[in-house]
Amino acid sequence: MNAYPADSVGRVVPRKIAIEQPLALDCGRTLPRHELMVETYGTLNADASNAVLICHALSGDHHAAGYHGDDDRKPGWWDNCIGPGKPIDTARFYVVSLNNLGGCRGSTGPNSINPDTGAPWGPDFPLLTVRDWVRSQALLADVLGIRQWAAVIGGSLGGMQVMQWAIDLPERIRHAVVIASAPKISAQNIAFNEIARQAILSDPDFHGGRFYGENVVPSRGLKLARMLGHITYLSDQAMRAKFGRELKAATPSFNFDVEFEVESYLRYQGQSFVDRFDANTYLLMTKALDYFDPAREFGDDLAAAFRQARARFLVIAFTSDWRFSPARSREIVKSLVDAGRDVSYALIDSQLGHDDFLMPLPQYHRVLRSYLARALEPAA
Amino acid sequence: MNAYPADSVGRVVPRKIAIEQPLALDCGRTLPRHELMVETYGTLNADASNAVLICHALSGDHHAAGYHGDDDRKPGWWDNCIGPGKPIDTARFYVVSLNNLGGCRGSTGPNSINPDTGAPWGPDFPLLTVRDWVRSQALLADVLGIRQWAAVIGGSLGGMQVMQWAIDLPERIRHAVVIASAPKISAQNIAFNEIARQAILSDPDFHGGRFYGENVVPSRGLKLARMLGHITYLSDQAMRAKFGRELKAATPSFNFDVEFEVESYLRYQGQSFVDRFDANTYLLMTKALDYFDPAREFGDDLAAAFRQARARFLVIAFTSDWRFSPARSREIVKSLVDAGRDVSYALIDSQLGHDDFLMPLPQYHRVLRSYLARALEPAA
Repeated sequence: MNAYPADSVGRVVPRKIAIEQPLALDCGRTLPRHELMVETYGTLNADASNAVLICHALSGDHHAAGYHGDDDRKPGWWDNCIGPGKPIDTARFYVVSLNNLGGCRGSTGPNSINPDTGAPWGPDFPLLTVRDWVRSQALLADVLGIRQWAAVIGGSLGGMQVMQWAIDLPERIRHAVVIASAPKISAQNIAFNEIARQAILSDPDFHGGRFYGENVVPSRGLKLARMLGHITYLSDQAMRAKFGRELKAATPSFNFDVEFEVESYLRYQGQSFVDRFDANTYLLMTKALDYFDPAREFGDDLAAAFRQARARFLVIAFTSDWRFSPARSREIVKSLVDAGRDVSYALIDSQLGHDDFLMPLPQYHRVLRSYLARALEPAA
Repeated sequence: MNAYPADSVGRVVPRKIAIEQPLALDCGRTLPRHELMVETYGTLNADASNAVLICHALSGDHHAAGYHGDDDRKPGWWDNCIGPGKPIDTARFYVVSLNNLGGCRGSTGPNSINPDTGAPWGPDFPLLTVRDWVRSQALLADVLGIRQWAAVIGGSLGGMQVMQWAIDLPERIRHAVVIASAPKISAQNIAFNEIARQAILSDPDFHGGRFYGENVVPSRGLKLARMLGHITYLSDQAMRAKFGRELKAATPSFNFDVEFEVESYLRYQGQSFVDRFDANTYLLMTKALDYFDPAREFGDDLAAAFRQARARFLVIAFTSDWRFSPARSREIVKSLVDAGRDVSYALIDSQLGHDDFLMPLPQYHRVLRSYLARALEPAA
């Protein structure tokens, strides 16, 4: 027996898939082969027309739904949205979720072994772009026998991968679902990323990225980076509602111990991230965010970039998201309209901020569910 | 000869003023004496009715206007607003500007000598509140022979001191000018402060605050703290206008060198701050910000706090300020109105963000100038 909920995909076993084709990267280097950690949920139909790709964001991984074992405290990171009868319905779709190249959860990345040296790649692992990820994911699709995705879906940095799929490989994606994303990040976003990077790079325990051999991790820097991220994932209003200005004690301590609830929350979030994430991967992810700019090779004309696309688009934004604000989603929508593409746009009333794209908001899930019902129609 | 502009206060000489009265602090400790670095501009009139106090913000000091010498590259931090004929008109007002207690520019603070040990105070220096500063500034007023300020003026953390003056010492302040401030900071603001503190506290060169004897300063942490501050002082829009997403080189470098203009700016700002500021003072200033909450001892009723006040108020906010947003200033105004106080409110169209309170925006300076014309009227 198991005790998994009826609308859960239940127990899942990740598998490591080897990509034996060389992968030419935007930085100019080539990986002769690489491995990707993958989970799949549901069943691929006979003509392989029901496959959905989930693209993860900054700190995500392949474990999007279900449980790895009966002892799991919690399911995958998007379990509220993926499962039988859920908006990404595994009774209808074959859902593929991977840990991106450069990740730290089993896919080839800075913390895996460099075959040339027998030691972890560390700082020798190439920096990647969203385009590189799309290339890697396309090779994965080949291995899985998926010529065309019914839909590619992602939030935040994941949404950038979705856009790049639609632009770079238009024949291989029918529906593009871009959630809480942006056509490129702002100078302010780059600035936040730069501080996170400097926190890690300047941590003496970083050892230039070669900390694996030093029996330490740059925990101070990674913790600061994560704390900073959390502020940008939450709205001012949400932090006020969640923590207020509550002091943990009745009176101020007049020292630097935890005094306010919000401090306690941030320190906990920072520390738990250190226990599960790799500093080199964090650096790589923030750089991929900074570099993303699909309009660049089209004369800074995003509509020209989208003219390459053939997919239908669903763009979703959240009212309380200040990191990837609705205004940024509207830029995407406007360029898609200018490019003559088929696009639906939903602005979801929300409170939490950027993190709302992970939440089971009824309005949000209704939009996703009804849109994805179209995704099983045959290719146009 | 000198080459100072005609509307400059010209050359100024800071002086150190000893406060020999004991100062009882909110933390329960008492400083038997302390010293304050002070600059004054203009002339105190016969009945000492034209004195204006300038309260500085997080990283400010006593040097608000004029030049310390002919070689000065730039004048004091609010020189565009203080001088003969300027909005804070030194032809009419006697302007007093100090480095607050706990500062690092000559006033008694963590980097000055603890008489009990003969070594720098460091972490043994007491944490302070805005109320403590008002008490210290009142002792300074006594020394200077100023019974009642024509006006107390400050932006940001400075504006908090202004409010506290009006509440705690109502007979000693005729006009309260509160600029780009808040009745208390939000959980999000506390979160930003907490990350800045953790960056400093976790820097191995911090040595628990006793770095003065170690021939190092916690430069990594202080730099990160300042970089983070800068993001919150500038609007998203201003960063976009100032830096865009301009790469310094034609193509990405695929390493962690400076790539975007905004990174270059932040690293420069961070480094120059390390050269002029003390880490213990930075910690102390952020704690004073977190603690400020004048409504607290009035049952969380800000209007009840303001019922103590007798001053007339001018409250100024800036449209592009997201750190201390106009909504926070309206909270102040609403409570003043509820308390039956005389209050004027000006919302200034601006682009830059929180830093606009330091800028010579014509609309802003017109409001200040015309309001302060009233400040020389006799006390009500």
